[in-house]
Amino acid sequence: MLVVMSVGATPEQIEAVADRIRQFGYTPHVIPGGIRTAIGITGNKGPEGRELLLMMPGVEDVVRITVGYKLVSRETHPQPSVFPIAGTAVGGAFTVIAGPCSVENEAMILETARFMTGLGVRLMRAGAFKPRTSPYSFQGLGEEGLAILAKARRETGIGIVTEVMDVEMADRVAEVADVLQVGTRNMQNYSLLRKLGTVRKPVLLKRGMAATVEEWLLAAEYLMAGGNRQVILCERGVRTFADHTRNTLDLSIVPVVKHLSHLPVIIDPSHGTGRAEYVPAMSRAALAAGADGLIVEVHPDPRCALSDGQQSLSFDGFRALYESLKPLADVLRVTLR
Amino acid sequence: MLVVMSVGATPEQIEAVADRIRQFGYTPHVIPGGIRTAIGITGNKGPEGRELLLMMPGVEDVVRITVGYKLVSRETHPQPSVFPIAGTAVGGAFTVIAGPCSVENEAMILETARFMTGLGVRLMRAGAFKPRTSPYSFQGLGEEGLAILAKARRETGIGIVTEVMDVEMADRVAEVADVLQVGTRNMQNYSLLRKLGTVRKPVLLKRGMAATVEEWLLAAEYLMAGGNRQVILCERGVRTFADHTRNTLDLSIVPVVKHLSHLPVIIDPSHGTGRAEYVPAMSRAALAAGADGLIVEVHPDPRCALSDGQQSLSFDGFRALYESLKPLADVLRVTLR
Amino acid sequence: MLVVMSVGATPEQIEAVADRIRQFGYTPHVIPGGIRTAIGITGNKGPEGRELLLMMPGVEDVVRITVGYKLVSRETHPQPSVFPIAGTAVGGAFTVIAGPCSVENEAMILETARFMTGLGVRLMRAGAFKPRTSPYSFQGLGEEGLAILAKARRETGIGIVTEVMDVEMADRVAEVADVLQVGTRNMQNYSLLRKLGTVRKPVLLKRGMAATVEEWLLAAEYLMAGGNRQVILCERGVRTFADHTRNTLDLSIVPVVKHLSHLPVIIDPSHGTGRAEYVPAMSRAALAAGADGLIVEVHPDPRCALSDGQQSLSFDGFRALYESLKPLADVLRVTLR
Amino acid sequence: MLVVMSVGATPEQIEAVADRIRQFGYTPHVIPGGIRTAIGITGNKGPEGRELLLMMPGVEDVVRITVGYKLVSRETHPQPSVFPIAGTAVGGAFTVIAGPCSVENEAMILETARFMTGLGVRLMRAGAFKPRTSPYSFQGLGEEGLAILAKARRETGIGIVTEVMDVEMADRVAEVADVLQVGTRNMQNYSLLRKLGTVRKPVLLKRGMAATVEEWLLAAEYLMAGGNRQVILCERGVRTFADHTRNTLDLSIVPVVKHLSHLPVIIDPSHGTGRAEYVPAMSRAALAAGADGLIVEVHPDPRCALSDGQQSLSFDGFRALYESLKPLADVLRVTLR
Repeated sequence: MLVVMSVGATPEQIEAVADRIRQFGYTPHVIPGGIRTAIGITGNKGPEGRELLLMMPGVEDVVRITVGYKLVSRETHPQPSVFPIAGTAVGGAFTVIAGPCSVENEAMILETARFMTGLGVRLMRAGAFKPRTSPYSFQGLGEEGLAILAKARRETGIGIVTEVMDVEMADRVAEVADVLQVGTRNMQNYSLLRKLGTVRKPVLLKRGMAATVEEWLLAAEYLMAGGNRQVILCERGVRTFADHTRNTLDLSIVPVVKHLSHLPVIIDPSHGTGRAEYVPAMSRAALAAGADGLIVEVHPDPRCALSDGQQSLSFDGFRALYESLKPLADVLRVTLR
Repeated sequence: MLVVMSVGATPEQIEAVADRIRQFGYTPHVIPGGIRTAIGITGNKGPEGRELLLMMPGVEDVVRITVGYKLVSRETHPQPSVFPIAGTAVGGAFTVIAGPCSVENEAMILETARFMTGLGVRLMRAGAFKPRTSPYSFQGLGEEGLAILAKARRETGIGIVTEVMDVEMADRVAEVADVLQVGTRNMQNYSLLRKLGTVRKPVLLKRGMAATVEEWLLAAEYLMAGGNRQVILCERGVRTFADHTRNTLDLSIVPVVKHLSHLPVIIDPSHGTGRAEYVPAMSRAALAAGADGLIVEVHPDPRCALSDGQQSLSFDGFRALYESLKPLADVLRVTLR
Repeated sequence: MLVVMSVGATPEQIEAVADRIRQFGYTPHVIPGGIRTAIGITGNKGPEGRELLLMMPGVEDVVRITVGYKLVSRETHPQPSVFPIAGTAVGGAFTVIAGPCSVENEAMILETARFMTGLGVRLMRAGAFKPRTSPYSFQGLGEEGLAILAKARRETGIGIVTEVMDVEMADRVAEVADVLQVGTRNMQNYSLLRKLGTVRKPVLLKRGMAATVEEWLLAAEYLMAGGNRQVILCERGVRTFADHTRNTLDLSIVPVVKHLSHLPVIIDPSHGTGRAEYVPAMSRAALAAGADGLIVEVHPDPRCALSDGQQSLSFDGFRALYESLKPLADVLRVTLR
Repeated sequence: MLVVMSVGATPEQIEAVADRIRQFGYTPHVIPGGIRTAIGITGNKGPEGRELLLMMPGVEDVVRITVGYKLVSRETHPQPSVFPIAGTAVGGAFTVIAGPCSVENEAMILETARFMTGLGVRLMRAGAFKPRTSPYSFQGLGEEGLAILAKARRETGIGIVTEVMDVEMADRVAEVADVLQVGTRNMQNYSLLRKLGTVRKPVLLKRGMAATVEEWLLAAEYLMAGGNRQVILCERGVRTFADHTRNTLDLSIVPVVKHLSHLPVIIDPSHGTGRAEYVPAMSRAALAAGADGLIVEVHPDPRCALSDGQQSLSFDGFRALYESLKPLADVLRVTLR
């Protein structure tokens, strides 16, 4: 940290701040300047004490220098992480996860699972528990949905990615799922994160609607600090003033996450744009930007979907997208899974 | 809803949309125009079917007209709601809630409770369970904190406002608390909202960091639809590009909420600004804007607070603020509680 | 500035950075730490060289410490500025500026000017040149509008606040106006700012739709560095995700500007909210927050306004608001002008 | 437009609104509903009258249906526009524009122009007039810079893309430039747009920092309505809460602009990310997303650049990027220029 003193700070105020820093067990380094004095701090392990220093007389600001996450950081784990899942893997390649927004019935799930495995897609998304903005919207089939997903997994071998909304259901969902999805609204649901830190399944952690990259990585740190080393990050668009898409898909987070962390990061172009017609362009852009994969909404009949039909690709639409990714991956020397 | 057809839509496409609307059990009203055709829809109760219509050929947009909330709406409950709590009330007056960010120990809680009751403040905030961005930050005293709050309540009669972070602890927190606080990160934690819909205590629902007013009112609708009619809304700043305050305090939401809903809305200037020095100005502004109250961070010794010291008022600072509110409330003909 | 080296930075990289700092004529202060090394810089007058340091091997970040504005800073001018204008003043009191969005014809301007002076309001706003989002919207009466404003000034003595959109018209507008308004879209039109730095009239500088406080103060610095010391800042709402008001009125900027600068800051609740019904609440909140005044849209017949009718108060509405400000100002010990 | 009446609107209020609509020369279509009444409007050409209707008793909202731009719309010009420039073209291919942030001296401009033409790049960017946030930063070489650019054009044949900051300099800049750039801060500088509408050179119109797609297209409409049909749109990142990049590069605007308009849209990954290390990933993503080109900052020695060095590629870095685009363009069946 670095303490920035205000212009008129007195020598007594500067000494008092230095003393306080010593009381914390840190070392102050007073840097007198032409306009104002700064005090560097060493020996601290995080921002502890920052708020208290901010309140001292003569202090203008206390600038943080080190980030608060460790286990997710590339500095402590230079190699990219790769997590084997259901006969495929996430990380070190471009892995496509696809499927309907929600489990609507057994037939459509089995049809989708067979279609996906036929194409070579090894992971299917589908929600049994749905977080909905309105209490009056369809909330998912719940337990019945989980049973359908389990059946699809048994019959086709496809891996299941599905959302867990609360601590109570976490163990039950983990029995069926190959990847446990945490939704954007739950990114900072710390009770849930703590619970999932103890589960032996990879977690797909969606970025919060207004989360900075540091907050997102700290949410991942909750999972890792709890013992779960298999965290997949997922950008799904953030909330801004822009109104031409449902959310603003922030693809530039891909190279930034790659710089800061060893964890894989995938893209959700369906929630990111909210319109099926924009999904192929953004999917190809995600691949070209260096993402580790996609999670895409696909529905046997988008016009009849119970939720998110507007942003779901049809089977034909998805097949065309998937085919278009292959030569692109080849040129980029990335394995398409 | 209103369907907007694209410029080149054919008569067949228009008729197909009208047919589909009839299939939903609604009535279409075709409005031919100079440039394009619109189709009004009546008979619907909400936006059901919107996404499906959006996918039909020739459809450019489907505009929503009615909002999704009912129980929170002023249209169905014209009078402002007032909730009696711990010998005081929230709603129909300006109610001040004050106290430390977190329960640090028994002495500071009892000291604060006595100071508050001495001033005439009847509700104290203090967190036993703290949601923290980093897993390595102080997370609150938990059960021990609840016991301390219960003691303060017994000894001073002050009402307790404290956060509930998950379904598991909801009943336990409800034994101690007079008001259950739902934090900004949990505004759309629907499992928690559903649980709190069944609890017989008022809920203070903080606005999500990036929540629109509709999403916020729909979160309140979850609580009310679950059976809990006592919901207090709390604006605590939203996330924007602006970096001069911790969050951007959106005071204009006060007259908007008053227009849309009968629920009381209070302001948190401490999280809203993040700096104690800006709290008094924004507290007075909240009163002048027509808010139903404040929730303010106050600490016996902010320089030693375990969390949020930078934004906490000292006892002297709070007393000065509270005194300054009285003549302002008189002039505005509002009761200060 | 403070250079933050990355975790694996070598001693050679650290020395190279220190050398570079010396080449700039600054002094480096190496601060070795447990995890990483930081290098404090003194002797610099601004952020010059920051970008170059950022590109050096082993450098993680370069943190700015000093702000770039000087003349607008409270540090170099501790007393609040007060500018005498047309028999009244802005700064050190609560000054109300009111009038229609645009000059529509002579009758409505004279009617408004007489109404305002009758109430005791000494400054009238009205645009002769209107920046409009669409090229097909009413763009103002131009020169004819200026002539009407000049007549209103002659006949009633009211001071005129009107917008200047470009360098060409600046001198002509300055002949008529008592205050030259720079609109939100022109806050960073540096050619215009440079021109207005040479004009002998106060400038009302609206905050850009997405301007940080530093960018806003630097825009004011352009005016002051050019020689014009009379700058009035005006917050008119910023652009965020929130959709319940036309813009998000950021009242917390008031105490922040007061902390950073000696310049007066006033509030535009009309553009800030976009709805006349929310203007009184936010006007009172602005006064309570410590602002130096208001600029409000008022129209003899808002239902027939050529622009912004929706956010304009009627004469009756404005009179009621103005009357309500008086006792509030008394209680706050502020002079209402 | 569609008028939405409030729940308790009386038949008299509904009739009054219908009357008013008829007075405007439009046709009202009353649509009675279960909960509330809506009134469709046909015969209008734009949103004129919307604000007046909003103020009528019983009116809750007036929803706009048609957009305000015409000449930029794909509805009136279904084929993508292609503009021939300096022996190459923008539109219908992927055109790369590259060069330094600013003209620093003759040597570096000639060196860059020769490097670019050697690679096959036909358009060079470089600013003679620089809009800078601080009045104390380097503001460009001005006229001298233009002369240098003219020389580079004569000697190498490269096309020049350079910024015009104000009306005064527009004709002079147009003598030298092949493309006139309008910066993000000037997107809504309507005096400048009106002037550039009369110039016979293509205009590169950067998106405003907080501009919606409609505002951006309306700014382009200003140029086209003024007579200049050659408008190139340029996304350069928007302002959001996110702090991991200088701006948030909104690549999803590419398919949206393609849907709405016939104008070409290119990407500025340098300002979009603010860090050279992220530029290659976002450049490839732009190509994959369907953009019509790039404008990239390249400098002979980024470590010594007078501005934006941090986000400038070196010659080697740019060559590697440019080479990597070729096979990608081939696979996407796009011509790389």
